[in-house]
Amino acid sequence: MEKNVDSEIIEHHVEEVEVQEERRKGARSHAASCSSFPGSVTPSDREDHSGTQSSHRLLAYSDALISIIATVMILPVAHTKMKDNEELSVQLLLTTKIAVYLMTFLIVTVAWAAHIRLFQVIVRIDDCLALLNLACMMLITFLPYTFSLMAAFPENILGLLLFCGCVMVMGVIQSGIVLYAFSRPFLLNEQIQMSENQTFYKRHILKVIMRVPLMCFFASIFSFIFFQLSYVLLAVVIFLPYISQSMKWCRNKAIGPVEQSPDSMLFDTYLPDEPLSKDRVEAFSDGVYAIVATLLILDICEDNVPDPAVVQKEFGGSLVAALRSYGPEYLAYFGSFATVGLLWFTHHSLFLHVTRTTRLMGLMNSFSLAFVGGLPLAYQLTHEFPPDSRNELEAIRISCVIIFFAGVFQLAIWVAALHGERETLHPYVRYGGREHAFMFAKLSLYPCVALGTFFLTCVLSRFSAPIFHLMEITVPFAFLALRLLVRVTLASLRLMFWPNRPGAAEEADDEEEARVPFSTLVS
Amino acid sequence: MEKNVDSEIIEHHVEEVEVQEERRKGARSHAASCSSFPGSVTPSDREDHSGTQSSHRLLAYSDALISIIATVMILPVAHTKMKDNEELSVQLLLTTKIAVYLMTFLIVTVAWAAHIRLFQVIVRIDDCLALLNLACMMLITFLPYTFSLMAAFPENILGLLLFCGCVMVMGVIQSGIVLYAFSRPFLLNEQIQMSENQTFYKRHILKVIMRVPLMCFFASIFSFIFFQLSYVLLAVVIFLPYISQSMKWCRNKAIGPVEQSPDSMLFDTYLPDEPLSKDRVEAFSDGVYAIVATLLILDICEDNVPDPAVVQKEFGGSLVAALRSYGPEYLAYFGSFATVGLLWFTHHSLFLHVTRTTRLMGLMNSFSLAFVGGLPLAYQLTHEFPPDSRNELEAIRISCVIIFFAGVFQLAIWVAALHGERETLHPYVRYGGREHAFMFAKLSLYPCVALGTFFLTCVLSRFSAPIFHLMEITVPFAFLALRLLVRVTLASLRLMFWPNRPGAAEEADDEEEARVPFSTLVS
Repeated sequence: MEKNVDSEIIEHHVEEVEVQEERRKGARSHAASCSSFPGSVTPSDREDHSGTQSSHRLLAYSDALISIIATVMILPVAHTKMKDNEELSVQLLLTTKIAVYLMTFLIVTVAWAAHIRLFQVIVRIDDCLALLNLACMMLITFLPYTFSLMAAFPENILGLLLFCGCVMVMGVIQSGIVLYAFSRPFLLNEQIQMSENQTFYKRHILKVIMRVPLMCFFASIFSFIFFQLSYVLLAVVIFLPYISQSMKWCRNKAIGPVEQSPDSMLFDTYLPDEPLSKDRVEAFSDGVYAIVATLLILDICEDNVPDPAVVQKEFGGSLVAALRSYGPEYLAYFGSFATVGLLWFTHHSLFLHVTRTTRLMGLMNSFSLAFVGGLPLAYQLTHEFPPDSRNELEAIRISCVIIFFAGVFQLAIWVAALHGERETLHPYVRYGGREHAFMFAKLSLYPCVALGTFFLTCVLSRFSAPIFHLMEITVPFAFLALRLLVRVTLASLRLMFWPNRPGAAEEADDEEEARVPFSTLVS
Repeated sequence: MEKNVDSEIIEHHVEEVEVQEERRKGARSHAASCSSFPGSVTPSDREDHSGTQSSHRLLAYSDALISIIATVMILPVAHTKMKDNEELSVQLLLTTKIAVYLMTFLIVTVAWAAHIRLFQVIVRIDDCLALLNLACMMLITFLPYTFSLMAAFPENILGLLLFCGCVMVMGVIQSGIVLYAFSRPFLLNEQIQMSENQTFYKRHILKVIMRVPLMCFFASIFSFIFFQLSYVLLAVVIFLPYISQSMKWCRNKAIGPVEQSPDSMLFDTYLPDEPLSKDRVEAFSDGVYAIVATLLILDICEDNVPDPAVVQKEFGGSLVAALRSYGPEYLAYFGSFATVGLLWFTHHSLFLHVTRTTRLMGLMNSFSLAFVGGLPLAYQLTHEFPPDSRNELEAIRISCVIIFFAGVFQLAIWVAALHGERETLHPYVRYGGREHAFMFAKLSLYPCVALGTFFLTCVLSRFSAPIFHLMEITVPFAFLALRLLVRVTLASLRLMFWPNRPGAAEEADDEEEARVPFSTLVS
């Protein structure tokens, strides 16, 4: 009986591949696809197409939702009004809010990683799974609010209970998703579909999924007795993947790698070189960059349209004069859009060369994105204060620090990729490859510029604002001219260290080589 | 000489296809790709991979940015505070803001369509094009602000000048993109790459691109003389595609279709059955649905965390009591998230069955999205007013109307698709296909429910709020049980009209048929 079921599944899978093949062809040449589809409808065809669906768009939508939610908590931080006189209490408030932002970002990222893990097991969806997933998303989007309640009322257990409740309901829904998917095995990924031991897999996945909700259940019970313990428990839950990951890494370094069965590899390990779905990392990053780039224009559209009555009374009817008072905010908008856009651009360039994303690269990416999410705050700060005040100087320095770390963690993604370069990178950007120097220059441009601006503002603190704006204006042009700059630098380095082998000749040589068609080199 | 260039381009193109083929293989089985890439790097390889890039992710990022900007102008509308006493002036203000929202949405959609058009010509990008595109995006995201200036100060030409300035700069950047792309022809699409007459194409595309900026130039000059004329000119610019489209459609219906050369088809026509990129329509819709679903949680996270001091003073330290006063806002959030999520779900189901998106379908989609963008406003309204007031009743009716139109325009997409079903739909959902009834039920569920709720609130106006909330709760379950409902309905219809041919037997027959493997039917 079981053999029979298995062969049915395999057959189903083979059909599926065929259908997908056909679909891809269809996308390429529509006319061909039209003629290949029969006019009348075969029931099996229907079963394949409409009963189950590719999960691609569902995941893209989930990524968009999660990325927006992850960056949302920067808004309360950015909107905290500050005055020069009440510095201390505001700084405390700001620190709390920033902590909430970072914690939210981390939690949402962990939830997102779990979502990736789940949908690496379930590769096709149907209507029911799509609706269950939407319910899950609704709960994820509510997490930031529970978290800000916790931060505002640390002594009150309500925020904690709400958080635990959300996580537990999510656990129940996710278990429902898993049970449903295992009852219709053609939704699962190939490896499990082929496996003879599906019940084992099911139990194992359920165990992994229910771990966090169970701990939340205990945390919510403890909260009635001794609520400090609950926070500790929650912190453990959140950092569990990272802790276990670093511990395993340390053990591997200390006593050598431990043999692992391929089964446990799939769901249990948090090893740094475990793959994450590259598409989803890109989609999540795109979402964060897009919402961050537009956060300031949201504010501008809402707040910076002056009231006609006010313009008449205060500016004598001159709209230009009224808008001039908003000048710094426009500058802040364009500055933040350009910075976020260019950071997206380096991220995009980097991931063009990445063939496979590891968990460590994903972690570095999350850190980079967390700092990118802080950019609107930084830019809001730069125009909040009167020119030449001590606060303005500090705001500019904070901006530099945030840009620096966002760039440095992007660089760290690359370093992590270089660590296992044969698996993660295209050959031509590997260490010593032709594009290596260029990629390195691209990734290190922002950290270097931010660091330079930071030190310049320390030395020439009187001119900090002009220096900062000059930096913003020149960086895009630096990116445009980067290829040229790298060539010049490399050539001059060559001239300095190997003067007997002139770079110009080699350059010409390269050009010659470049004209040889690709196909002749391959064949 | 020209022959030589052409053959070089073709060669380049062939290489490209090979490389893409190899990349797709690489994605499928990583190990194979690793061995097929040579260890050392060939210069031509480098040229192909890093010099030019697939434009997919750039377009996805642009779609995300544009969709956020399109929906942003609902925020000033939703945040307009209303009181029961000053109805008239507030209603006027609200009407203006809603008009601004709709106009912004329309303009941004037109800009987005132009962006699709441009990147249907340019199919591959490099660093320079990516940076130019980002500059373009920055200007598009600034358009809503200029538009709200125009609405607030219709007599002042500053908003108009800013708008025209943005459009003109965008025109210059886009011309730059086109000139750059034609100087490196391997970035262009296949048809133009193969063509012997590239200069003709270049001139033609530049002409199409510069049309709008030129009209804006004239509008900005006229604005100094007689500014009403400028507004007329701008309206013409914005609606030009739609006007020319409907005129051509009318002429076609009246005197029969006019022969068109395939060249002009590519860039000049706005015929309703001209294709739009389906991927980009999906990405743009996903962006709108995602940002709309989260707009209310943005507000909640920012505004609904009570101040500890206030809780201590007004609620005697009881956080639960303080949060209870926000109750309706949480309900509004979950209601709007569920509605938006389910509308996304029907959109997703619909586009699973769509093989090709026409311009008319894109237009219907934009209208549907414009109403979806109004949902946060509707839900904000429902909790703004005291219970059982006349305003609350009106707010609930407005919500029903908005949901109704969002759903009806989704239905219109399907009707438009059915109009040319052989080209646009998979065979099994075409009229009379097996999935036809189910798809129809899915798409008509929300319009029917919204209409029903609307009339119920008219009849039982005292219970309007409970009716509305009941509707919100039952609709997700209706979606879960929809397949069952449709089967029951069809069976009962069959029993009513053809009682001599029992549905149960046919049902069993179908099940039997469904088990025949797909491959045997095809071969």
